[in-house]
Amino acid sequence: MKALFLSCTLKPSPAKSNTEALCGVLVERFEAESVESEIVRLIDLDIKPGVKSDQGEGDAWPKVREKIIAADILVMATPTWLGQHSSVCQRALERMDAMLSETKPDGRPIAFDKVAGVVVTGNEDGAHHIVACVSQALIDIGFTVPAHSWTYWHLGPGPGPDYTECDKGHEWSDRVARNAARNLAAAARALKAMPLPEQEGRE
Amino acid sequence: MKALFLSCTLKPSPAKSNTEALCGVLVERFEAESVESEIVRLIDLDIKPGVKSDQGEGDAWPKVREKIIAADILVMATPTWLGQHSSVCQRALERMDAMLSETKPDGRPIAFDKVAGVVVTGNEDGAHHIVACVSQALIDIGFTVPAHSWTYWHLGPGPGPDYTECDKGHEWSDRVARNAARNLAAAARALKAMPLPEQEGRE
Amino acid sequence: MKALFLSCTLKPSPAKSNTEALCGVLVERFEAESVESEIVRLIDLDIKPGVKSDQGEGDAWPKVREKIIAADILVMATPTWLGQHSSVCQRALERMDAMLSETKPDGRPIAFDKVAGVVVTGNEDGAHHIVACVSQALIDIGFTVPAHSWTYWHLGPGPGPDYTECDKGHEWSDRVARNAARNLAAAARALKAMPLPEQEGRE
Amino acid sequence: MKALFLSCTLKPSPAKSNTEALCGVLVERFEAESVESEIVRLIDLDIKPGVKSDQGEGDAWPKVREKIIAADILVMATPTWLGQHSSVCQRALERMDAMLSETKPDGRPIAFDKVAGVVVTGNEDGAHHIVACVSQALIDIGFTVPAHSWTYWHLGPGPGPDYTECDKGHEWSDRVARNAARNLAAAARALKAMPLPEQEGRE
Repeated sequence: MKALFLSCTLKPSPAKSNTEALCGVLVERFEAESVESEIVRLIDLDIKPGVKSDQGEGDAWPKVREKIIAADILVMATPTWLGQHSSVCQRALERMDAMLSETKPDGRPIAFDKVAGVVVTGNEDGAHHIVACVSQALIDIGFTVPAHSWTYWHLGPGPGPDYTECDKGHEWSDRVARNAARNLAAAARALKAMPLPEQEGRE
Repeated sequence: MKALFLSCTLKPSPAKSNTEALCGVLVERFEAESVESEIVRLIDLDIKPGVKSDQGEGDAWPKVREKIIAADILVMATPTWLGQHSSVCQRALERMDAMLSETKPDGRPIAFDKVAGVVVTGNEDGAHHIVACVSQALIDIGFTVPAHSWTYWHLGPGPGPDYTECDKGHEWSDRVARNAARNLAAAARALKAMPLPEQEGRE
Repeated sequence: MKALFLSCTLKPSPAKSNTEALCGVLVERFEAESVESEIVRLIDLDIKPGVKSDQGEGDAWPKVREKIIAADILVMATPTWLGQHSSVCQRALERMDAMLSETKPDGRPIAFDKVAGVVVTGNEDGAHHIVACVSQALIDIGFTVPAHSWTYWHLGPGPGPDYTECDKGHEWSDRVARNAARNLAAAARALKAMPLPEQEGRE
Repeated sequence: MKALFLSCTLKPSPAKSNTEALCGVLVERFEAESVESEIVRLIDLDIKPGVKSDQGEGDAWPKVREKIIAADILVMATPTWLGQHSSVCQRALERMDAMLSETKPDGRPIAFDKVAGVVVTGNEDGAHHIVACVSQALIDIGFTVPAHSWTYWHLGPGPGPDYTECDKGHEWSDRVARNAARNLAAAARALKAMPLPEQEGRE
C-alpha cells in the first residue's frame, strides 16, 4: 500500500518544514504497517491555479494527480495561517475539485476506496477548524476519513514557537500521529477488501 | 445492521420537521440495504447539558447513548441556524464528548468501527460548513466518515422556503441522500469485517 | 455605556466558570472606560429552544433580550467543546435569529449601532474557529465586530488544564482581553456618535 | 474615501469573473457615497507565497499592500471552491499576516480604523462559512467588520449556474450588496472621525 503526503508548507526546499517534521512520525509508523510513503512539497512545483486536472503547459499538477490516483492513503499536511489551511493546501484541493466528476473504469468516483488524513502544525490555534475544512473537502471529493486520522501541534494561547523549535507537546502529537497512521492503514485495507458501492447517477 | 438518526430540529413533536423529511430518503434506501433505521427527535427528550455520559436524575441521554452504542451507523440530522448546526445538535455532540475517554472491552475507543453521516436542511446557505464541523467532531469521537456520506437541501441566495414546502432541488438532495445511505452501509460492513486496530495509549 | 456578557458555560451556578473568569478581565477594563458590565449565565435560566423572541410560558429569553437591546456592547463568552462553541451559546444565537427581522423605530435593524466581541476558553484548540462562527452570526444579526475584539485561552496541543487551574498564558490572554475591551468601547462610542445608515428594504 | 476590492477569482483577465460582477454592485453604490473604488484581480499579478510584506524580487505584493494601506475600506471578493475561499484569497490573507506586527506612526496596528467586507459567489453552498473565515482573519489583522457588510450569490442545493449565467436571486444579492456598501462607508467614516484607541503592548 502507498501513502502520499501533500506537504503544503509555504517554504520552498531546502528550508525546514515543521509540518513535514510531524509527517515524519506518520511515515515511520506507516513503515511498520508495510505502507510505503512519499512526501511531495507542493510549493517546489509549478501548480497552476484552476479547477481542471490539467491547466496546460508547464502545469506540474498532472504528475501529482497521478500520484494521488496511485495512492491508497492521502495525507494533507498544512501549516496554520490566520487560523486557516495554507493557500498551497487550498490550491491542491481546488485542483482535486476536478475529481468530483472523474470516474474509475467501473463508473464510481475516482477517489473512492481511498482514505485521507490531515496533519496540522502552527504557531497558534486553528487545528480543529483546519481538520474540519480539509476533511469536508476530501469527503466531498470521494475520500473516506477514518476515526482519529489526524494530528496537530501548536502551543497556546497566542503566537508561539514552531514544532521543530520546541519539544513541548511532542509526546501527545506524535502518539496521536502514530495512531492516525494505524487507523489510515487499517481503513485503507478494509476498503480495498470491501470497496464502496456503485452510485446512483444522474440520468 | 442498525442506523440511528439523531434528529436535531428545534421543533418538538408532532410538528413536521424538514430535516426528518430528508432523513426519510436515507431510511428508505437503508431498508433496501437491510439496515434497520430509528429516528430519535432529541428535542422531545430531556437531554441535560454537560459533558458526562450521565448527568443524573431525569437525564434522557443515557438511553440515547445506549442506542448509539448499539448502532453501526449514526446520522446527525440538523437544521441550519445562522449558518451553524442547531443547539440541539451541539448538545448531543457535547454529550458524546464523554466517549472520547470511554473504551470497548478490548480497550479501543467506544465509537470505533461505527460510521457517521450528516443531513442538513435549511432555509439558507450553511450546509458545507455544518458537514465540516459535525464530521470533524464525530471523527474526533471515533466515528469513521465515509466518502459522500451526507446530503443537504436549501435554496439560495438568502432566506427561502423549507424542504417540505417546495419541490425544487429535491431530485438532487434525494439522490445524494440515497448514495449517502449506500456508502454508509458499505463502510459500516467493511469496518465490521475488518475493524480498526488497537491504539497506542498513554502510558 | 453598557456591556452585556452572555456567559455560555455548561455549568450552572455556583460552579466556577473559566469563561467567566476570563470575562472578568474585560469587565475590569470596561470599568476604566466608564462602561458598566453585567454577566448573565444563561444555563441558570430557562431559555426555551426556538427562533422567536418569545417562545411562550416560562421562557426566560425575553428578559435577556431586553438586556441585549439596552446594551451598547455584547460579549458572547463560550467554552470550547469538540472545537465548537457551546450549545448554550448556539441557543442564544438561535434566539437572536428573530432580530434579523426586528427593526428600531427608525426602520433600521434592531441590533444596528451595537458592537460585539467574543471570549473563548477551552482545554483544547478551537478558539479561532469559534470567533469566526460567532462573529459571523453576530454580523448577520446586525452587530459590528471591531478589530481585536476577542480573546481566548487554552494550552496546546491536545487536552489540558482549564484557565483557572493554570497561570500559563494568562499574561497574553489578559492583555488581549484588555485591548478587546478598549476597542469595543471605542467602536461603540463611534457608532453611537455616527450611527449606521438607513437600509434599502424589500419593497 | 477609497475602497479597495481584492478580487480572488482563479481566472486571469480577460476572462469574465462572476465575483467581480457582484462587486460591481457595491462599486456603483460606493460612487453614490462618494467612495472611490478600485478592483485588483490578484491572479493577474505575481503574488509570491509567504508571510512577509515583501518576498523579494518580482513580488507584486508590495504594491497591493500600498493600496491596502491607502484604502479606508477593503473588500475581499472570492469564489467558493469545495465550500472554502479560494487559494488566491488565502494567499492575500497570508501576506496580510505580516500586518499583525506592523504599526502606524502612532504605534497602533497598521490596519486599525479600516473596515472590511466580503463578497462571495459560487456555484454551490459555502458563503456563510467563507464570510466567517475571512472576517475572522481580517478582524485578527486589525480591520473592523461592520454589520451587514457582505453579500453572496449561489443557487442551491448542489452545483448550479454562475452569477453571470442566471438572473435568479440577483435581486436579493444585489440589494444586500448595496446595503453592505452603505454600511462599510458609514462605519469607515465613523472610525475616521473617532479612531480606535492605543493598545496596551507587550512590555
